[in-house]
This record gives sequence, C-alpha cells and structure tokens, in this order.
Amino acid sequence: MTAPAAETGAWTATQTAAAVRSGAVRAREVAEAALVRVERLNPKVNAFTDIAAPRALAEADKVDAALSAGADLPLAGVPFAVKNLFDIAGLPTRAGSKINLDNPPAASDAFLIERLTEAGAVLLGGLHMGEYAYDFTGENAHDGNCRNPHDLTRMTGGSSSGSAAAVASGMVPASLGSDTNGSIRVPSSFCGLFGLKPTFGRLSRRGTYPFVASLDHLGPFARSVEDLALLFDVLQGADPADPAQAARPALACSDDLGKGIDGLRVAAAGGYFRQNGEPQAFAAVDRVAAALGAGAMVEVPEAARARAAAYVITTAESAALHLPRLRGRPEDFDPETRDRFLSGAMVPAVWVQQAQRLRAWFRAQMAALFERIDILLAPATPFPALPSGTRTITLGGEAMPARPNIGLFTQPISFIGLPVVAVPVWLDGETLPIGVQVVAPPWREDLALRAAFHLQSTGVCAAPVAAIP
Amino acid sequence: MTAPAAETGAWTATQTAAAVRSGAVRAREVAEAALVRVERLNPKVNAFTDIAAPRALAEADKVDAALSAGADLPLAGVPFAVKNLFDIAGLPTRAGSKINLDNPPAASDAFLIERLTEAGAVLLGGLHMGEYAYDFTGENAHDGNCRNPHDLTRMTGGSSSGSAAAVASGMVPASLGSDTNGSIRVPSSFCGLFGLKPTFGRLSRRGTYPFVASLDHLGPFARSVEDLALLFDVLQGADPADPAQAARPALACSDDLGKGIDGLRVAAAGGYFRQNGEPQAFAAVDRVAAALGAGAMVEVPEAARARAAAYVITTAESAALHLPRLRGRPEDFDPETRDRFLSGAMVPAVWVQQAQRLRAWFRAQMAALFERIDILLAPATPFPALPSGTRTITLGGEAMPARPNIGLFTQPISFIGLPVVAVPVWLDGETLPIGVQVVAPPWREDLALRAAFHLQSTGVCAAPVAAIP
Repeated sequence: MTAPAAETGAWTATQTAAAVRSGAVRAREVAEAALVRVERLNPKVNAFTDIAAPRALAEADKVDAALSAGADLPLAGVPFAVKNLFDIAGLPTRAGSKINLDNPPAASDAFLIERLTEAGAVLLGGLHMGEYAYDFTGENAHDGNCRNPHDLTRMTGGSSSGSAAAVASGMVPASLGSDTNGSIRVPSSFCGLFGLKPTFGRLSRRGTYPFVASLDHLGPFARSVEDLALLFDVLQGADPADPAQAARPALACSDDLGKGIDGLRVAAAGGYFRQNGEPQAFAAVDRVAAALGAGAMVEVPEAARARAAAYVITTAESAALHLPRLRGRPEDFDPETRDRFLSGAMVPAVWVQQAQRLRAWFRAQMAALFERIDILLAPATPFPALPSGTRTITLGGEAMPARPNIGLFTQPISFIGLPVVAVPVWLDGETLPIGVQVVAPPWREDLALRAAFHLQSTGVCAAPVAAIP
Repeated sequence: MTAPAAETGAWTATQTAAAVRSGAVRAREVAEAALVRVERLNPKVNAFTDIAAPRALAEADKVDAALSAGADLPLAGVPFAVKNLFDIAGLPTRAGSKINLDNPPAASDAFLIERLTEAGAVLLGGLHMGEYAYDFTGENAHDGNCRNPHDLTRMTGGSSSGSAAAVASGMVPASLGSDTNGSIRVPSSFCGLFGLKPTFGRLSRRGTYPFVASLDHLGPFARSVEDLALLFDVLQGADPADPAQAARPALACSDDLGKGIDGLRVAAAGGYFRQNGEPQAFAAVDRVAAALGAGAMVEVPEAARARAAAYVITTAESAALHLPRLRGRPEDFDPETRDRFLSGAMVPAVWVQQAQRLRAWFRAQMAALFERIDILLAPATPFPALPSGTRTITLGGEAMPARPNIGLFTQPISFIGLPVVAVPVWLDGETLPIGVQVVAPPWREDLALRAAFHLQSTGVCAAPVAAIP
C-alpha cells in the first residue's frame, strides 16, 4: 500500500515518525508520496534545486530494514530537505550561485544531515536560496524566484527561501536552513512557519558553505513546535571540526514542552522594535505578548547601531570570503549580490573594529537585560510577505530599498547569537501570516520552545499547509 | 651610610635584592643612589620622561620597614622604571604622545607595577618611548631622541627606547616595556640587553595604554638572565581584567636556570631569517647556535607573508584605536606616526580578514615545527644600532625606509605570540652589541630562559653597563 501523497503531506515530522515507527506506514511509502508531492508542487513553488529521488528511496528502504531489525529511530521515515549550501554527497554545493556549480561534488554529507539521517530521516534534496545567502527576498537571478505557497505572487523571504517554501507547501514536514542576519526568521515569517535559529555555536556548521563565519547559524524549519524540538534534540552534538562550535550538554527540549510558561518573565521590545514596521508586525507581537502574560515593554539599547554593526561585519567578512570570485568571475554573480559584495571589499577595517567593539558592549547590555526577563518578543519582519519583485518599501515615511531592509528586526538579535524561535501569527482579516521572534538568553533554546509550544497549544500560532491552487 | 651610586649601578636586580635582604645596604640607600645616577645620566641618555623621586624614597622606606618586620620580599629594594604607557598613579599615561598629557592622571598603578611593588621593587618613574608605540627607532618628536648608552650618537631602538636605555646605562637594573611587533626585542638588540617577550596572554596588560590589543605583550628588560627569570616569576599571575590574559599556573623559571641545555633540540631559522640583514646579524645567530649545539637550519614557512599580515593587523587595529584623535587633533601627532595611523584608517577590512586567516595557518605551521625542536634562533635586528636620524637603509641591495623595517625579523614571531628571550652578543671587533631571538613554543618561557642562561654562563652573551663619557 502506498500512502496517499496528500495525506502524508499534512503530517508533521512527529506524526510521520510515529506512523512509520508503529508500522502503520513504511518509510518507502512516505518517501514515494513525498516525491509525488515534489513533482506536483515544485513547478509552482520552485523550492527544490536538486531532487535526490534515488537516494531518498534507497535510504527509506534502509530505514524500513533497520526498523524491522529493531532499531530505535526517532525520525524514522521523516522526509526532509536542506538549503543548497549544505553539502550533499555527490552534488556540488551551490550556495545559490552559478559559480559553485563548477566545484567538484561534495565527498560527504554535512554534519547536520548525518545527524538527521542517523536518526532515520530521509533526505529528498537541495533547496533554493538567495545567492551566497546575501538575501532577504528569495529571489535568485540564476534559479528564478522561489514562490510563497500562501500566495504564489509573493516573496518567500530569504535567504532560506526553499527551506520555508518546501515545508509551507507540505512537500516535506521539515527542512534545514541557515541564518546569518535573519535568513531563517524572515522566511518563517513570510511563509508562516516555526523556525529555530539556535544560539551561535550550538550546532556544527561542518560541511556547509559559509556566508559570514562569525555570524552564521544553522537551524530547522517545521510546521509544529514539537517538530522543532525533536529536530533540535537530534541535531545537537559536539563537533570539533567547527571551530565556533561550543560543546555543551544537549538540551532534550522535546521533553520540556509541556512544562508551560508559569514563572517565565516575558517582555516585548520597545523603541527600535516598535518603529519602522507595518501595523501587522506590532499587532502580532501584542497578540503573542498577551498570550504569554508579558509585563511592561523593555528597551533594547542601541539596537539600530547593533544592526548597522552587523551589516558592517557582514559585508566586509563576506567580501573577504568571495574576493577571488569577485576578481575572477564578477559577471557570474547575481547582480543583486555582486554590488553588495564589491562594496564590502572597500569597507575600511576600522569600521569593522568599531563594530566588534559595539558587539562586545551590546552583548553585555543584553546579558544584563536577560537577568530581568526570560523571553524577549520582537517582530520577525516589518510586514507580511511582499509582492515578488518589490524594489522599494516605505517605512516610517521613508522610501528605502526592499532587499537589504527586510531583516531590520532580525539583525540586532543574531548579531550577538541569541537563540530565537520564530512563531507564525495569522491576524484576523489577514490572508498572510507574519512572524514574531521569541528570543531567549544564550543556550536557553528550551525556554523559547516552551513559550512557542504554549502559543501553539492555545491557538495563537499555527503553521497550516498552504492550499496551493 | 649611603651606597655609592656607581657601585649599586653595576648591580643586577638579583644582586641588589640579595644585598638589601641581607641588610648589607638599605633600600633607601639604593633608591637614593639610583636617583643620583638618573640625575647624572639622564640628561645624556634621555631615558626618563617622569622621575618619581618622592614616591621612590617613600616606597624604599616602606621596604626597609617591612624587612625589619620580617617580610620576605624577593625584589627588596630593586629600583625599576616603566615605559610611559604603564599607568603610574598620579601621572597621566603618556604612551609617548603629546595628546595623552591632557588626560587625567591615572588613579592607580598598572597590574605589573603592583606585582613588582608588592615584591619589594621600587618604582623610579616613567620612560621614553616612540609615540603610541608605533616605532622601532627610539625617536620621538615631542620628547626628543632617546640615546644609546653604548654610543650616544646612535638609536636605542624602539618603541621601548627608555626601558632599554635606562638599564643599559646602569640607572636601574631592570625595567618594563611592551612589544607588539618587536618593541622589546629591537631595543634589547641595539642596547645589548636581555629582554623577555612572554607568550601572548601570559602577563596581564591591565593599566597599560594599548597599541594593537590582539598583538600587545608586556615584559621585562635586564642585564642578566637570572634577573629576567626572577622578574618573570613575580610578574605572572591571573588577572581577569585583561580579556586576553589566560590564567596558567605560574612558571618558577628562576629555579630552572641551572638545568642546562642537555636534551634541548635547537635550530636556527633559515630562508627569510638569513636574508635582508648585515653580516653581524647572522654571525651572532651562528655563534649562539654553535654554543647551544644547534642542528640543521629549519625553514619558517611564509615568514614574509606573516610579517606583512602582522603589519596589516597592526596598522588597521591601531588606526581604529586612534580614530577620534586622528580626526580631532591630527596636528598633535608625531609626524612620523601620524601618516602611518592615517593610512591604517584606509586599510580595507578584507585585508585584515586575510591576515587573520594567514595567522591561523601560520600558527598551525609553527606548532608543527615546534614538535621537532624546542628552541628556534633568529636575528633580533638586521644590524646593530643605526646612527640617530637614519632615514633609509639598504637591505638585500634595496633601499627602504628605516623606521618600519628595523623589526623585520621580530614581526613574524610576535604575530603568533611565541615567547622570546632576546640575548645580546658582542662580536669580535665590534663596538656595538647585536641581539639574537631565542624563541620557544607557547607557554615555555622556561626553555628560552634556560638556553639564555647557558649562553650567559658560557660567556657567549653578556650585558655590561655602558661606559658613558
């Protein structure tokens, strides 16, 4: 019996694993159904750049065999896919670029793919992303636009565009993406998903193509908080091969979800985080704040400067990474990223020094703030998904380019590596979701996940599969 | 009875402490004699910028009282002075500049002054240095040239010019300086002293004015290896206030000196370190190498690139530090340093990124080299002390500016923070000394000090007091 594609497409990772582990359905059937959905939906959504069907079916068979032999696989048969900056053995690691297609194929999978595979998950392929991750839109000159499953005329957000679109469309229940300045949280907001950007250094980045090594994070997307927690349980693990990775005891977050929010001190961010957004952004925060019993708003000091400093570091460090390609193959870059990298190559080092000094100062300020609260709330994006091709936005009465400013609320947070769960809110009368950042102190992903689970359980947040016409 | 100034001026720190501890002479007498020497010699040498006579006499009295009360003070009555970038309570910390004289006086002494004072040493004052430590000559537009005690027409080397001149002239037996790219090792070489640049992070820099925080080291000058070891024993100590300082168990180096060099694997550096120097530089290395039973020469990979990278980091990071002063008071800089700082303000961040990448690579290469050897030998300077005012030197047939190139052999070593003892060699027929770098693996100052002690014991190296006409 083959599981119907539509039915398993609505399943979360947790539900899929339970069904496969119980023997109600075989991993092979789940994988085949997922591949049918990809075949049907991907031409509309443009989320996958590489579909690894033979591998997926072979791995699903292995999972079925292992289960028959009595193996305990927490993610048995869960289909997933990864932003195409993750190494997938046998494929060149695109990182959204044309240039990287000339690289030799990866010799082995990225560390996090290995973790999920060992737990029984089944990789379906590589996903669309903004070139070299320098993007908040989900538009890519080489691969075309990735399209928002909730409204195909709108942006997915980026740079983990395909990671969000593949999950929101129900092609897969879960995916992996990366977040340097907001690239998990922005597409989570635009596509109405739960997304986890863990603490900087928590998850190994071995086998992924970098953007800004001192700011890059990896993390999962899903349609339920249980799934995020279950994935995070599996993804953790010390890896000396990533110099930024700090070995910490794993947090078994999935066990903690039911603990509720009693005693959690919650506050929404004021000032910077109440300006330069559309009313929906603040309404969503207010709704979440009320549901979590938030107290008075708190001020995040110098958030605008923190964002500026994040940009200075981003542009200079990424330009250093790409300097040989900027010199040798400038014509093969996406025009939208080329100029940003080129300008980064001219940023004076003294600016970066000043940005790093601000970073140390800002980290200390936020540490002091988190002595008074456990959870900080902020908008994930200034507005719901923009129409594809939008070049200019108006915020606070000022017109500005859309692409670099979509992440204005996410950048100050990732600048100092705080863990964030992006949660999706559907406001009354709106046809599109918008995300809220649930921010916790360093290494306390469990707190953010507990708060997010409370929001899901009380119906404040939800991530339904999009109904694609 | 007052100790004769000439007699105590020839004493080392070890000899001075022994005499004071035994009661043969009082700390007060030693301090008065040292002040007499300073009064007589400083107008010729220009080593002191600040003479703290009342403080010195008061502290000497305290030492005498403490000894009478039975205190055990390893440096009892040892006069010393410090490069004027060390905070001295009650004085503005000059760092060789005019601008800093407008700063409020320091509220307390630098950490290392505290360490020495607690051990019974007596501070005599602050010492001449190149402006903001960006110097290898010992020439300063505000304070005039510091003069080499072995030949008053020649440079002391810099930037710890006064620290070397005060010890070589016999005004004090010991001093403290700083070394970012060679500022302890270069004046040790030009003035014929033993100087210790410890491992990066070994000694706290609290209460000193920075130059390049990621490269700055502090360390002592002396006329004997026993003194360096004794001072180093006292200077060590954990200090959480210096973020770069790594708490390590203290090395009691003074106890280890007699162990000899049996079993130490010694090699001189070839390639880069055998080029671009006068014959004396290499003859001095050869003499030290023979005395230490060195084996075949070893290659230090990419030393020229390591030096270039050290300069890129130096110029950019120091420009960031001084940016407000470069903008606000450019006319008050020493013209010789102003242009160097200004050019640093324009260095692109991508160069610094590349330099940092090279640094990581170079550190790994040197770690591999130090699995095969225990001591690496290299010249400290390309030549003995230059005539004061020298603007141009010719090395390898190429004319180049003197000031930035005197440290070409020291920069690659400090770039990765390796510990170095600079040892003085007097070649036959030469009237000036020249230094050799005795380089050890990280945190193994003891090995370099043992090798240096062997060189001193066998008469290969010596640091006599200069006979100033």
